[in-house]
Amino acid sequence: MTDPHPAASWPIATCLHGIPTSLPDGTALHDAPDGAWARVARRIASTGFDHAELADSHARIGDMDASQRAALRATFAEEGITVASVHVQRRSVIQPEHGAENLAYAHRTIDAAADWGMQVVSTGLHQPFTAEQRRALWFWTAPGATDPDDPDTWDLAVRRLRDLGRHAAELGLLLSLEMYEDTYLGTAASAVRLVEEIDLPNVGLNPDIGNLVRLHRPIEDWRAAYRATLPYANYWHLKNYTRDEGDGVVTSSPTSMELGIIDYRQVITEAVEGGYRGILLMEQYGGDSLGVCATNREYVRGILSQVVSELERDAHAEHGSRDG
Amino acid sequence: MTDPHPAASWPIATCLHGIPTSLPDGTALHDAPDGAWARVARRIASTGFDHAELADSHARIGDMDASQRAALRATFAEEGITVASVHVQRRSVIQPEHGAENLAYAHRTIDAAADWGMQVVSTGLHQPFTAEQRRALWFWTAPGATDPDDPDTWDLAVRRLRDLGRHAAELGLLLSLEMYEDTYLGTAASAVRLVEEIDLPNVGLNPDIGNLVRLHRPIEDWRAAYRATLPYANYWHLKNYTRDEGDGVVTSSPTSMELGIIDYRQVITEAVEGGYRGILLMEQYGGDSLGVCATNREYVRGILSQVVSELERDAHAEHGSRDG
Amino acid sequence: MTDPHPAASWPIATCLHGIPTSLPDGTALHDAPDGAWARVARRIASTGFDHAELADSHARIGDMDASQRAALRATFAEEGITVASVHVQRRSVIQPEHGAENLAYAHRTIDAAADWGMQVVSTGLHQPFTAEQRRALWFWTAPGATDPDDPDTWDLAVRRLRDLGRHAAELGLLLSLEMYEDTYLGTAASAVRLVEEIDLPNVGLNPDIGNLVRLHRPIEDWRAAYRATLPYANYWHLKNYTRDEGDGVVTSSPTSMELGIIDYRQVITEAVEGGYRGILLMEQYGGDSLGVCATNREYVRGILSQVVSELERDAHAEHGSRDG
Repeated sequence: MTDPHPAASWPIATCLHGIPTSLPDGTALHDAPDGAWARVARRIASTGFDHAELADSHARIGDMDASQRAALRATFAEEGITVASVHVQRRSVIQPEHGAENLAYAHRTIDAAADWGMQVVSTGLHQPFTAEQRRALWFWTAPGATDPDDPDTWDLAVRRLRDLGRHAAELGLLLSLEMYEDTYLGTAASAVRLVEEIDLPNVGLNPDIGNLVRLHRPIEDWRAAYRATLPYANYWHLKNYTRDEGDGVVTSSPTSMELGIIDYRQVITEAVEGGYRGILLMEQYGGDSLGVCATNREYVRGILSQVVSELERDAHAEHGSRDG
Repeated sequence: MTDPHPAASWPIATCLHGIPTSLPDGTALHDAPDGAWARVARRIASTGFDHAELADSHARIGDMDASQRAALRATFAEEGITVASVHVQRRSVIQPEHGAENLAYAHRTIDAAADWGMQVVSTGLHQPFTAEQRRALWFWTAPGATDPDDPDTWDLAVRRLRDLGRHAAELGLLLSLEMYEDTYLGTAASAVRLVEEIDLPNVGLNPDIGNLVRLHRPIEDWRAAYRATLPYANYWHLKNYTRDEGDGVVTSSPTSMELGIIDYRQVITEAVEGGYRGILLMEQYGGDSLGVCATNREYVRGILSQVVSELERDAHAEHGSRDG
Repeated sequence: MTDPHPAASWPIATCLHGIPTSLPDGTALHDAPDGAWARVARRIASTGFDHAELADSHARIGDMDASQRAALRATFAEEGITVASVHVQRRSVIQPEHGAENLAYAHRTIDAAADWGMQVVSTGLHQPFTAEQRRALWFWTAPGATDPDDPDTWDLAVRRLRDLGRHAAELGLLLSLEMYEDTYLGTAASAVRLVEEIDLPNVGLNPDIGNLVRLHRPIEDWRAAYRATLPYANYWHLKNYTRDEGDGVVTSSPTSMELGIIDYRQVITEAVEGGYRGILLMEQYGGDSLGVCATNREYVRGILSQVVSELERDAHAEHGSRDG
């Protein structure tokens, strides 16, 4: 097991949910001039982040040429922000009629991420929102696409993700697969089985159990789900929700990591004790996503500080006893 | 567009919801001796506020004589608290059978506010609580009075509010109209139409969209509502709520500005970029209103700091390019 | 009335809900070696606490011998943590078939607490979880045991609790009875009546109104409940919840003391003004209990700072006027 990062410099990144995907004049941020991106970078930096995840909702690096990417990278660097991970979302490689196209796009994104100097390509098997999801206040309260209970489609997922994983490995990148309901990555057991079948050292899970605890339906126990999946984690979206159940009604609401139902003090402690050394990605839906992510970052640093100090104490004790 | 206030001194006031409206012995705070008010002022100051809004739930300055008002003003000043705005609540100038009386009271309050040296008189068209609202845990979950779909009543509202607006203008005051459900100020479109018909430069909106996102019914999109109303804003109640919808059930709950459904980082940024220079009034219902308002004040200062710095950057860039 | 503690050193303790009751290998914490307890103590200390309440979910000091207790006490002391209170939970002295056994256990715990040097033994009349409570996401949403409307059982409760109270008094300990729904301590009126019938100066209430405001049913007004019970309080579990009601649905969720429905700024102020001088025990269910307790501790210190300063001001004014 490698040494943990120092708590003060452990890479903690923000998602971009707090950044509008288009400018006031309607221009998509993907197509926006450098000045608009500089404003985005300053906004992120103003909340104290030095790492961000670039999601393709905001910029599709796989669809940019090298000079565009270099300019974007420089714009972030100018504000002291490292982009070490890219997130390809709702582009499932087994999406009916679009799987092959999405696969090609993912390959392009892997090339782009390597060219950029990133460490992680994150993706998953979730598909574009249904009309009902787009109408909902929170998309997770409406039904989305469901991966079929069909061995051929499962095998196709394994093959195509393994293909992406090999490509990523050749370029020194991690590939991380995000847990998401109703996909082959929708339960701890299925997610573990999928990543074990892919069977590549650089392919792991993004155990985003926050995606599951918000659902308006019976859910897995989050402690058990983390215990099963953390050993496979190589990237991690962290977010939290309140949740109440009773009289047949489930309610949930995004909240800070400290105030939600998942005990992140416990989970992060177990993760780091168990060897997790990856990027920690702060995520929040709704409201002031960027502000809550910044609050969560400080919260996570406090937890890291304690767990890293315990590990150093353990290492010291072990070293001492071996010497003795 | 005038320059923005420095973030550190932008006037951020607290509401008085956290202050009991009567003393332990049953005396209404309106009638309480200066010593009781001094205690209120110290309590507010202890949470770091230097501005407060005086609501007539706590003191009816329009029903005080000049010496009473001077004593109250001095009591606040003693603790470093400026009262720059008065809020006249649930005294609609078109309330059936009470409209004329409420109008006269509002005029008295305008005179009193000017005498005090305030800047803003805030009011609205909401009426006293119904019995069902008084029984409810949260009054907004029960039906209240509804302004009629009747052109004559609408015109009466326009005439009377314009009358108040002219009075306010003569005394150098702003008149701000609070958005509130089921009144002529209950939707963005209706509120804008009302203020446009009143058509006075010192009469604007208090775009308290928090009043709307907490309702247990379908709601307007808060982003669109703010975009439509912020250009008319001259005063602003800010508060936030969690909100969940699903299976025909709506739930909502007061929470901090950072944790609720409205993205105040984005909205405040757009407001200030669009020219809003008014007082920011922290409001919170339930629980520790004063404490949450203080938390929100620090949150808002952080956002202001970033947006003011962006505006200065823009101004500098423009200045530089004009020079060049 | 005794002088209040200085705000900075008022004893504020954490509950242990954030500490797993067993080690990763399945060993119950009660039976764990000192090293495991040292890790617990460091974890608590890392969040800034110097006081903790020992609940028998984690360690049954009444079932330990003196040397075990001394070792455990020393382990906490090593990290600067004082354990001044023990909490005996779900061991009602009138639990059918187990009352006598639970009574004996409570007596042993009183002896152990005195031997330890604690100040408070806290218990209540709530019974072990029902199967439905164990299955529920939150146990308070499912029905639990109910104390019978039966004078003989009531009298038995009074006699046995008085018996414990006398034992505690002999050893210089307070006995505090926690309010909990559906027990004789389940409403303000019943709790007050019970403690008045016990009629011992060292026996009082733990007015944990948080237990009541979370229930999925109509509830007492928390302001009235506190007003009635605070004069009897000699220990205090403090926690908060959001709560919403509407369309026949009640929802509630644990949150920070600042953000929940109970106004703790007001309640703590009234308590201290009314003479409460006891330990303040931060409690939180779900999520990061320890982290929220630490956040709450800082919040409570801020409130104490203001109320203690007001009391000193009052004392000074009274002293001055007596001198004059």
